[in-house]
Amino acid sequence: MEEIARRARDAANVLQCTTSEHKTATLKNIYKILKDNKNKIFEENEKDLAEAQRRVDQGELSASLFKRLDIKGKDGGKFEEMLSGIKEVENLEDPIGKTTLAKELDAGLELYRVTCAVGVILVIFEARPEVVVNIACLAIKTGNAAILKGGKEAQYTNRLLAKLIGEAVQAAKKECGGWIPEDAVQLVETREQISELLEQDEYIDLVIPRGSNSLVKYIKNSTRIPVLGHADGICSIYLDESADVEKAKRIVVDAKTSYTAACNAAETLLVNENLLKNEFLQVAKELIDNNVLLRLDARTYEAVDAARSELGINSSSYVQAHENDFHTEFLSLEIAVKSVSSVQEAIRHINTHGSKHTDAIVTENKENADLFMKMVDAAGVYWNASTRFADGFRYSFGTEVGVSTNKTHARGPVGLEGLTIYKYKLYGNGHIVGNYGTGPGKRSYTHKNIPF
Amino acid sequence: MEEIARRARDAANVLQCTTSEHKTATLKNIYKILKDNKNKIFEENEKDLAEAQRRVDQGELSASLFKRLDIKGKDGGKFEEMLSGIKEVENLEDPIGKTTLAKELDAGLELYRVTCAVGVILVIFEARPEVVVNIACLAIKTGNAAILKGGKEAQYTNRLLAKLIGEAVQAAKKECGGWIPEDAVQLVETREQISELLEQDEYIDLVIPRGSNSLVKYIKNSTRIPVLGHADGICSIYLDESADVEKAKRIVVDAKTSYTAACNAAETLLVNENLLKNEFLQVAKELIDNNVLLRLDARTYEAVDAARSELGINSSSYVQAHENDFHTEFLSLEIAVKSVSSVQEAIRHINTHGSKHTDAIVTENKENADLFMKMVDAAGVYWNASTRFADGFRYSFGTEVGVSTNKTHARGPVGLEGLTIYKYKLYGNGHIVGNYGTGPGKRSYTHKNIPF
Repeated sequence: MEEIARRARDAANVLQCTTSEHKTATLKNIYKILKDNKNKIFEENEKDLAEAQRRVDQGELSASLFKRLDIKGKDGGKFEEMLSGIKEVENLEDPIGKTTLAKELDAGLELYRVTCAVGVILVIFEARPEVVVNIACLAIKTGNAAILKGGKEAQYTNRLLAKLIGEAVQAAKKECGGWIPEDAVQLVETREQISELLEQDEYIDLVIPRGSNSLVKYIKNSTRIPVLGHADGICSIYLDESADVEKAKRIVVDAKTSYTAACNAAETLLVNENLLKNEFLQVAKELIDNNVLLRLDARTYEAVDAARSELGINSSSYVQAHENDFHTEFLSLEIAVKSVSSVQEAIRHINTHGSKHTDAIVTENKENADLFMKMVDAAGVYWNASTRFADGFRYSFGTEVGVSTNKTHARGPVGLEGLTIYKYKLYGNGHIVGNYGTGPGKRSYTHKNIPF
Repeated sequence: MEEIARRARDAANVLQCTTSEHKTATLKNIYKILKDNKNKIFEENEKDLAEAQRRVDQGELSASLFKRLDIKGKDGGKFEEMLSGIKEVENLEDPIGKTTLAKELDAGLELYRVTCAVGVILVIFEARPEVVVNIACLAIKTGNAAILKGGKEAQYTNRLLAKLIGEAVQAAKKECGGWIPEDAVQLVETREQISELLEQDEYIDLVIPRGSNSLVKYIKNSTRIPVLGHADGICSIYLDESADVEKAKRIVVDAKTSYTAACNAAETLLVNENLLKNEFLQVAKELIDNNVLLRLDARTYEAVDAARSELGINSSSYVQAHENDFHTEFLSLEIAVKSVSSVQEAIRHINTHGSKHTDAIVTENKENADLFMKMVDAAGVYWNASTRFADGFRYSFGTEVGVSTNKTHARGPVGLEGLTIYKYKLYGNGHIVGNYGTGPGKRSYTHKNIPF
């Protein structure tokens, strides 16, 4: 494994010199080779699917995981989407080599801060084989060397995809005078290899896990390498005293039901106590009508239970919440509901129970909205909008490396920027620090901005 | 310790609402209280110095550490510098609340990326008590809650400084309607407390160690919390075939001798083999005249040894290098020297032996300089300038949180930016994702830039 990591590091160093043209040529090669080998890829994918079907039948594998393994989709639509994703990445602006600061330190001594690739990224994912292609393209676009570890369930598909990408990279290497190194993208296959790779902090700069909470937690606990991603997505919506009930209904139902498996789906609903007798009941009814099971704290339970016949709802639509429900990412048609006395209490609840992902307030009171948006410690803080907007494409980033709940480097939906850092380039003409300071004959720094 | 961390987190949440005015008021209070208590601080410092002197006499403590404990300096100059540092931080632009991206996602749905504090920072340092003041001010300026752990050697001074800062914060709290929380700055004292705090990744967002390599390495290996800093500073200078010998002499001597204890001092000299018979000998002579011990690889040893009498140097001025010398941060008047055949070999040497801090090339050949600056994987890559320019003040940042050799978040000399991150604020009017997509009645995102 150290060998793979070292090869990736060597590739990363070469990639620092790769031009936009070289990267575009490589992405074009990848697009073409995958398109040309569509049928072969489907054949390998069939092998994975057949094996997975067997395990689904034996109850060893979930149907949703099975679905994610399929690279073809309905009428091959998923495959075409993957291909057009390559074109989209190709068309994004090159994020590397951009000057973000320029200062004259003294006459003839100029400092530039210039974006560059992070270096070597290790991406660990489960099930969906198209991630191999997606990440390979993002890595090439940003000039990072990538080590990819896919799920065992997709091994036949992953292996062929990696082989084809390798061939495309090889061809690009020839076309680009060697500046696209063949180890730019490497695939590893077993879980044992992962734990060894997580030790290679000398060579690997960033780990990106894309998969279940347990995968992400395992990785965060097993490495000194920085990890970009999120374990839980416990998003909350707070219905403020001044909430507009129509907006509240629309936002809560969308945030909870439009895609329950998403990390940006709502898991907790906080309700101002002054809404319990009326507005909250309308929201509760709307959720129940959309097949959501309500997990209610004492006061909200009492309110719903008292209005049961009036609302025409079934007693199986709601249960009493356990404290643990407010720490749970349900990823299903269930929501934990709690009454709070103020926006301050809502903020406190979120800052102690949430996962710093995305939280929303529904209110017509600007002051409360401002307070909520300042004090809630999350990557996304929303006013009168569904938490489900937390997504790189919706944010206009063109692509998404992942969603980060970190407090450093990159936060929220992460575009190509998350795979970049910067270096300082200093251009002098024999300058030395000994000439600066106070005293006779000593120089002072000019510290002038250089336009860029 | 969990209690301290939790209190810091609560303080951090309140600090999200603190205005520039509140922060300025707090910094003014700190300035005043320290100035007013100068004599008391000197008294406490004397206690630390007396104890330290005892340990120096017994050979338990180094003279350089002793010197760093002194908060007074010559004629109180060090103390005055510390005070003017507070004013400098006060006068820096507030880095919080700045919009760095603004997009209309759709009519009435606006996304803003706004800078905010990282949250809770844990700063661990040794010896120099003025760091308590420095970091407290940086934390307040950026709206972070800080937990500080100083060296046991400066305990009397640190304790009083922390107490006075606490009083200044308390006074500010009253003046600012509670928006400066009293737990904004907390001091812990024992090493045992540190290992417990390093476990509190739920509450602490960033650890900043400022001290010896061994301290930084211990911390990096003991926590899941992101660490900002650098362990080694193994900076190299490469004398290219086309180096100007006068610039080479000036730069190498400055980088090695102007402050040997600095992390940006040069530790390795790489010399193009074509310079061995002439230019290199001039540089070697200059280093030896400045009392630098040369640790020479076989070829550079041979060159120096052959020219010994011609150069008029003593055989005790140079020794044969061990491989380990090229991985060593000497922090003294010693330098490891190696002959290389090309700029490529120099780059490879640095990328495998360096510490990603700062590396320089001396050359009149622009192509080689460009290649070096692209391919050397370091926070700073310099052309014809001394590595010792790698410093927040010299870079014009006004202050320095530390120097980072990380590949994520912040790299190189880190100013206030290193203590900030951002959050996404989304302003809607009842917007839901269910309304977007393809199909009848579905909306598209507008993704227009909003001027800011």
